Amino acid sequence: MQIGMVGLGRMGSNMVQRLLRNGHDCVVYDAHPAAAKPLVELGATACAELQDLVAQLAAPRTIWLMVPAAVVDKVLAQLTPLMQEYDIIIDGGNSSYHDDIRRAAELAAQGIHYMDVGTSGGVAGLERGYCLMVGGEAATFAHLEPIFAALSPGAGTVPVTPDRVQTSADQGYLHCGPHGAGHFVKMVHNGIEYGMMAAYAEGLNILHKANIGKQVRESDAETTPLRYPEHFQYDLDLPEITELWRRGSVIGSWLLDLTARSLQGNAALEDYTGHVSDSGEGRWALATAVDQGVPTPVLSAALFSRFESRGNAEYANRVLSAMRKQFGGHIEKPKGSGS
Amino acid sequence: MQIGMVGLGRMGSNMVQRLLRNGHDCVVYDAHPAAAKPLVELGATACAELQDLVAQLAAPRTIWLMVPAAVVDKVLAQLTPLMQEYDIIIDGGNSSYHDDIRRAAELAAQGIHYMDVGTSGGVAGLERGYCLMVGGEAATFAHLEPIFAALSPGAGTVPVTPDRVQTSADQGYLHCGPHGAGHFVKMVHNGIEYGMMAAYAEGLNILHKANIGKQVRESDAETTPLRYPEHFQYDLDLPEITELWRRGSVIGSWLLDLTARSLQGNAALEDYTGHVSDSGEGRWALATAVDQGVPTPVLSAALFSRFESRGNAEYANRVLSAMRKQFGGHIEKPKGSGS
Amino acid sequence: MQIGMVGLGRMGSNMVQRLLRNGHDCVVYDAHPAAAKPLVELGATACAELQDLVAQLAAPRTIWLMVPAAVVDKVLAQLTPLMQEYDIIIDGGNSSYHDDIRRAAELAAQGIHYMDVGTSGGVAGLERGYCLMVGGEAATFAHLEPIFAALSPGAGTVPVTPDRVQTSADQGYLHCGPHGAGHFVKMVHNGIEYGMMAAYAEGLNILHKANIGKQVRESDAETTPLRYPEHFQYDLDLPEITELWRRGSVIGSWLLDLTARSLQGNAALEDYTGHVSDSGEGRWALATAVDQGVPTPVLSAALFSRFESRGNAEYANRVLSAMRKQFGGHIEKPKGSGS
Amino acid sequence: MQIGMVGLGRMGSNMVQRLLRNGHDCVVYDAHPAAAKPLVELGATACAELQDLVAQLAAPRTIWLMVPAAVVDKVLAQLTPLMQEYDIIIDGGNSSYHDDIRRAAELAAQGIHYMDVGTSGGVAGLERGYCLMVGGEAATFAHLEPIFAALSPGAGTVPVTPDRVQTSADQGYLHCGPHGAGHFVKMVHNGIEYGMMAAYAEGLNILHKANIGKQVRESDAETTPLRYPEHFQYDLDLPEITELWRRGSVIGSWLLDLTARSLQGNAALEDYTGHVSDSGEGRWALATAVDQGVPTPVLSAALFSRFESRGNAEYANRVLSAMRKQFGGHIEKPKGSGS
Repeated sequence: MQIGMVGLGRMGSNMVQRLLRNGHDCVVYDAHPAAAKPLVELGATACAELQDLVAQLAAPRTIWLMVPAAVVDKVLAQLTPLMQEYDIIIDGGNSSYHDDIRRAAELAAQGIHYMDVGTSGGVAGLERGYCLMVGGEAATFAHLEPIFAALSPGAGTVPVTPDRVQTSADQGYLHCGPHGAGHFVKMVHNGIEYGMMAAYAEGLNILHKANIGKQVRESDAETTPLRYPEHFQYDLDLPEITELWRRGSVIGSWLLDLTARSLQGNAALEDYTGHVSDSGEGRWALATAVDQGVPTPVLSAALFSRFESRGNAEYANRVLSAMRKQFGGHIEKPKGSGS
Repeated sequence: MQIGMVGLGRMGSNMVQRLLRNGHDCVVYDAHPAAAKPLVELGATACAELQDLVAQLAAPRTIWLMVPAAVVDKVLAQLTPLMQEYDIIIDGGNSSYHDDIRRAAELAAQGIHYMDVGTSGGVAGLERGYCLMVGGEAATFAHLEPIFAALSPGAGTVPVTPDRVQTSADQGYLHCGPHGAGHFVKMVHNGIEYGMMAAYAEGLNILHKANIGKQVRESDAETTPLRYPEHFQYDLDLPEITELWRRGSVIGSWLLDLTARSLQGNAALEDYTGHVSDSGEGRWALATAVDQGVPTPVLSAALFSRFESRGNAEYANRVLSAMRKQFGGHIEKPKGSGS
Repeated sequence: MQIGMVGLGRMGSNMVQRLLRNGHDCVVYDAHPAAAKPLVELGATACAELQDLVAQLAAPRTIWLMVPAAVVDKVLAQLTPLMQEYDIIIDGGNSSYHDDIRRAAELAAQGIHYMDVGTSGGVAGLERGYCLMVGGEAATFAHLEPIFAALSPGAGTVPVTPDRVQTSADQGYLHCGPHGAGHFVKMVHNGIEYGMMAAYAEGLNILHKANIGKQVRESDAETTPLRYPEHFQYDLDLPEITELWRRGSVIGSWLLDLTARSLQGNAALEDYTGHVSDSGEGRWALATAVDQGVPTPVLSAALFSRFESRGNAEYANRVLSAMRKQFGGHIEKPKGSGS
Repeated sequence: MQIGMVGLGRMGSNMVQRLLRNGHDCVVYDAHPAAAKPLVELGATACAELQDLVAQLAAPRTIWLMVPAAVVDKVLAQLTPLMQEYDIIIDGGNSSYHDDIRRAAELAAQGIHYMDVGTSGGVAGLERGYCLMVGGEAATFAHLEPIFAALSPGAGTVPVTPDRVQTSADQGYLHCGPHGAGHFVKMVHNGIEYGMMAAYAEGLNILHKANIGKQVRESDAETTPLRYPEHFQYDLDLPEITELWRRGSVIGSWLLDLTARSLQGNAALEDYTGHVSDSGEGRWALATAVDQGVPTPVLSAALFSRFESRGNAEYANRVLSAMRKQFGGHIEKPKGSGS
């Protein structure tokens, strides 16, 4: 099939490569034209302007957007006046599903079909394939299946679940429901991802501090005594332990595989500052749960840890220090002076 | 090697089978003698009393305990008077690492070697092999390696991490450190397990309630209005979605494989009540983090969800209702009357 | 001043009484006309229809809405066609501040002034006065000050903060900012309220279970052994303890006063089921914090405890049980069988 | 009564002053003798050595320890050999109740009575009186009531709870139960304190960032777009708002009084770094809840926020960044570059 790709960052350019490998015809565009060059060498057609992109595609067109959530509306404003009835626009980025519902309605008024495709897989997706969570009309989904099949891992990559009638999910793509359903499922997926990541990170932090009893500890009213310092004398080897857990344990996962890889030769992770971004879905998952009345203490704790890693609790912490000074005359201790 | 196994529940009996398959000589005991029968058919020697078990084993003996944490001290009280210098006792259950340190010292006074082996793998361990986290003396660890090698998955079961010197961790067992280190690592492992499980469970609950806008909602001061009921109209297919996520996504894991399996033909999970036990390690992981001053908001949230699932928040909730009545005159609404 | 009050529930009718006591002229309406009767005896003028209410008020009119958040738009749709330029509508209920911003703009198009007034105080407000958090135009705020002064506690009810220039805040009402600022501040106020309530409730639950060591505990792999049962033998008297804390302690508060009152003669709180509602602001506070990237782990935990108290975690808990059965063969224990 | 006070920090010296004011005879000791000087001027007898202290007190002696929890055992080791049968030692500091149970047994073997007295009130206790939570033998409690009555606020300081038989709790001291019960109740008290403090701090942080929409925000895949920047334009006056909430609102409390005081003329709290200590009880409250199976998500979140304020999540955050780089190629953004 012929497909236009707008946005050639890490995700978009890898997806184009995977589509090319599977014999699809890719017309590509990025605001930074240099991003298209390596893809042209692999067989893609590059366009310098969105007009060209639309012109290069035979109607009815399929254009896949792979751009930051914050610029989707801007791109749509440029693109949709150029497009025609029966064309298809896919948002494969990390949009809020509320925006999908609005955009689908706006584009439907023009006769353009809108699909939201939550796309997971990261930089490994080029080789492993992408997990595609699709929302929109069933007929449009059916029309696009060759594209989805090319991007997804395909059958046979993981053991088959017993007693199951095979569907497209067993290849790695699924029509989840009407407009927004794809990004809804992806939003929840990322909420789970944050929770899993935080579970590993917190656990590794406990292991990392298993030798805390070796440190000398102050004996003042501001420092909790460590009850059994002799029980905190372990120098644990985190690269070995994460590697161990990959085999036979209940907590094996792809994230653990990657964690073990990160720690090889780099147990202290000193090349990172620990300033952790979030790209929106974790927030929206939490906001959605709150709307639903669904308790999500783990997903929220994981999200808040990221906010805190970026210094966003600072004013709250100052309020605590101010209160402590008022009621107890407590003076703050300098950073890093105790645990 | 010859080994005695005490405790033939789901874990102990499967481990004996795996040891027998790998050519080890197993002498077995359980408080319920019937539990030994199927193992005898596979080649194990059963004993009706602990005395017999000790008598059947050639010195220096190796006895592996696979019993609930609450009865380890009772079994040790019966067993150790029967044992001799240079014998080895392994606690492969879910003991607190603080108990390991104490027991190792007590047994050392008798010349008995104590090893703590955190064992993960569940009922699938018979076929997949067990992940073994070992604490104790290095020489005893080395002596026991044939046993550990037989129980663990072995090399080749997962892709090799690049740029790594292979160790026993790559087979699925590791000497983590001195006494208690094995259960320390297992304790953290289970804390992570709780966090991961809760992340999936919370996420699936959001998906499960994606159609909440279809319900009629009361309009009183006790019920929050649902701001966009038209955005909560999705009937999502959780068996398909969990299956999908197994392929190419960032959240693939063995726990997800099992979750997808559970949901096949059983999306509503109506045969479960949701009364979730915890077996101790999650608690100890949290208590340890608190001793260390390590923030573990995700691990604690996961643990508390289990406590709440068993009704343990009930008094706290009554306090909240009593407060609300006092300040606002709010009358409780019946259970299930709103979200 | 003359004021119209729409909504004569617990809050609205008490506020009318307080206004009457302070010499204001109140014209009142409720969908259930019986609610107006006791107020007529105290000097209010009752209306059977909104038209009458508007007709009874001299232009420019001031109408205060005290109705559930879910019906504000419906009431406005009926009311605003009857009103004129320069009239004032106050929403004193628990609306989302996002709705205030929208409504203020809609009403401004008609020349009607809109004010949002977050109102705290509960049923005790009749005697104690109400805390009023006001958003909207400064000139309209100034015009309404006699009303706010009558409803608020007034000066002298709490000790004066040293070194302070007295403002209306010292009487109990404040112009917080433009449209929505009143409900924004009230939203955060209620988020804090949830957090404080949960802090007390969790603490009292610990005290309540201080005698848990007296219970017999099962010794199976599904039940964590209690490490020091002899340290959990306290039968604590919660009515006495909450009363004690009201004096000299750091945690004294009005909520604690009410809690102590609730527990008198009723330590077990058996007349409550613990099904705790939430009326929206706690949700919006959390959603707002998420939008801002502000970590609010305590406010979210408090909110989620309420969701859980209403059974909303049930599906998540079933997922956990299903996973545990898959990997460990664990069978659920019946509710209430352990802690 | 005659009483010896060991430890003349902020708490101990104020308590001596209050005892002196109420006509008690105080013999005092501190490792830093200068601390005793101002008390001598007020009528106390200072001792340079613990031996002198014991010698100055008539048998049976009462000695109150007001020292950091980490040094109580050291002081007891010096003090108890000097003491006699029927003497009384009070630990008024922040010890773990587990230590009380052990110490009471050890001292009982010598015939010395041990009392644990959780003491709340902070630096304001000198004027407001202290809230005293007492554990130990009933007869010793009765013997010490004149001391407790002098230290506590006394009757009449807060409104009387209706329908209540007055007890010592109404004066501000209570015999909570046997050994350890006083510090058990104090431990929970401080857990609640942490939760309340965090509730205010988180809420004020939301208010503090109510103008976040005025900031320019990056539009890349690492930064969540702010959905309604025009709804985050409020410059809120926190000194005024906290002052307002002191009057008539549901969240009035002594902690709020102190917070309002802290913010006067100092809304930004720039003289604090936000490095918040914890002195042990919050940790023990959480550990106790975990032992009991009591869910305490709010108390734990409050504690973990303090741990995080001290940088203790740093390794966990690095793990998250390392994972994100592995799966998504995400590069960390510098601190402070976004919210």
